[in-house]
Amino acid sequence: MSAVSGAGPEVFGSSGGRILPVGRSVTVEVPASSANLGPGFDALGVALGLYDTITVTTIASGLELEVSGEGAGQVPEDASHLVAKAVEAGLRAGGTGAPGVRITCTNAIPHSRGLGSSASAAVGGLVAANGLMGQVLTDEHLVQLASEFEGHPDNAAASVLGGVVVSWTERSATAVTYRAVRMEVDPTIVATVLVPSETSSTAQTRGLLPETVPHEDAAFNASRAALMSVALAAHPEFLLAATEDRLHQSYRAPALVGTTEWIARLRGRGLAATVSGAGPTVLVLGTTPLPTDLRADAEAQGWQVLDLEIAEGARVLAEQ
Amino acid sequence: MSAVSGAGPEVFGSSGGRILPVGRSVTVEVPASSANLGPGFDALGVALGLYDTITVTTIASGLELEVSGEGAGQVPEDASHLVAKAVEAGLRAGGTGAPGVRITCTNAIPHSRGLGSSASAAVGGLVAANGLMGQVLTDEHLVQLASEFEGHPDNAAASVLGGVVVSWTERSATAVTYRAVRMEVDPTIVATVLVPSETSSTAQTRGLLPETVPHEDAAFNASRAALMSVALAAHPEFLLAATEDRLHQSYRAPALVGTTEWIARLRGRGLAATVSGAGPTVLVLGTTPLPTDLRADAEAQGWQVLDLEIAEGARVLAEQ
Repeated sequence: MSAVSGAGPEVFGSSGGRILPVGRSVTVEVPASSANLGPGFDALGVALGLYDTITVTTIASGLELEVSGEGAGQVPEDASHLVAKAVEAGLRAGGTGAPGVRITCTNAIPHSRGLGSSASAAVGGLVAANGLMGQVLTDEHLVQLASEFEGHPDNAAASVLGGVVVSWTERSATAVTYRAVRMEVDPTIVATVLVPSETSSTAQTRGLLPETVPHEDAAFNASRAALMSVALAAHPEFLLAATEDRLHQSYRAPALVGTTEWIARLRGRGLAATVSGAGPTVLVLGTTPLPTDLRADAEAQGWQVLDLEIAEGARVLAEQ
Repeated sequence: MSAVSGAGPEVFGSSGGRILPVGRSVTVEVPASSANLGPGFDALGVALGLYDTITVTTIASGLELEVSGEGAGQVPEDASHLVAKAVEAGLRAGGTGAPGVRITCTNAIPHSRGLGSSASAAVGGLVAANGLMGQVLTDEHLVQLASEFEGHPDNAAASVLGGVVVSWTERSATAVTYRAVRMEVDPTIVATVLVPSETSSTAQTRGLLPETVPHEDAAFNASRAALMSVALAAHPEFLLAATEDRLHQSYRAPALVGTTEWIARLRGRGLAATVSGAGPTVLVLGTTPLPTDLRADAEAQGWQVLDLEIAEGARVLAEQ
């Protein structure tokens, strides 16, 4: 754990409106997320039961930031920290300021593994700010604000709304609107993630995608994306077929060798395994636990194997 | 109405197995269908409450065929007639033959308009054969057999299973398997079709599709296809966004001028209008009737405007 005291703005958030009193505090739990789920590139996301906990307290002045757990010592611990930026953006969106804030992050979501830690940080900060303000922002606001940090809504929407979401982007001449809706999910479906020790760069793997794809592949993914919604809602027996993809995983495979090998092995056993986001984590969705031999092999190779519930969205755990 | 007596095979269907007695009769009602629904190219289909009625009766010898209504005098009235071929394929699949059959088709589904009349004919013949045999074929068999006539399962699966279906094709080295699953649909959703007097050729419009498409457009359609399943199941307020498409409609627009104009007009009014199959019919999905001014304008331009329920699959109405 480390602590810094930054200079920060004179007022944190909006200086023109309501100013929060010193001593207000909110603690938020925000889930990890996995995007794409195979065919739903940049569209499907699932909230996973692995949580960062963020406490934001109004103080007399400045910005104090403490980070423990994942990312401690590796992320900037000043006003450029994503949670700090999100708290400030949330306060601004609600026309509210604070004389200063103390932010404490206890992180369990691994960074740069395809588990949406950046989106979780943004969502956590926004939801904390919203809690401080007395819930003036709707879920739609939170999806919009969090997605603006990311540039795409799939992870952010999952961490806001919980469950499985389909998200999309509406562009007009003057605005980019991020939209998302949570879908029904069969309660017997559970998630397992295989998390390697190596990290991956979304920016780098995104560069491996082609400009164009065969029309047949585009139609293929549309069919599987439609099927995925149906499989998740009521037909888990089709999860394997529904998680087929031709738009991103094969193109990124050269940068994700171990991930790709494990996905092939898992799918060969009938398990609906996909790259989690831009990788390198592997997501498996199904109605049974991972077979013990596969679990043991993965762990022996240094993968962390986690059984995770499909989580609710970020929520305020405590406030005062 | 017209009647012909073809020479036909000595035994209609399978000659090696059970032979049906003369005088058995089944009457089947088979719905029309609309494919694609915007983003779900070759994947999504909906059964529509516009029905062909087919009666198949075992007779002492030969093939007698009577067609009235849509297609009368325009389709071959011999063993090459699609219903006759489907009855025979159904009997063969069930290891059953008949000394002869009389087929009476009373058709309400317009031909070559994008309402799946060919798939309905195939499904109707197969379901009639199945009725004659005492229901030995499952829905999975019927989807497979009907899709083999079409080469794709979207319309056929809708007419077999009813409701809205997502279908897909699994190819192995030795087999092509057509799969489909019916999805949940909000009971408040209704369909309206605008049927022009002109016909369209699926083969011709299919030729307008490009070999490749931008990756962004492929991802776009995957997101909307996933959203479409969710919008249909529980969120009709998203039908307009969910029916957006970048994979086929714009490419075919030059061959579907009137259709494209009407879709733009309807969508401009917030209505989820898409090309029905390969056109030229327009499908509108929503929770309210078509506004009266639009209906009147379309009718004044010679379009037939039909409010149709989302139908159940083909079923046996009567048997003896």
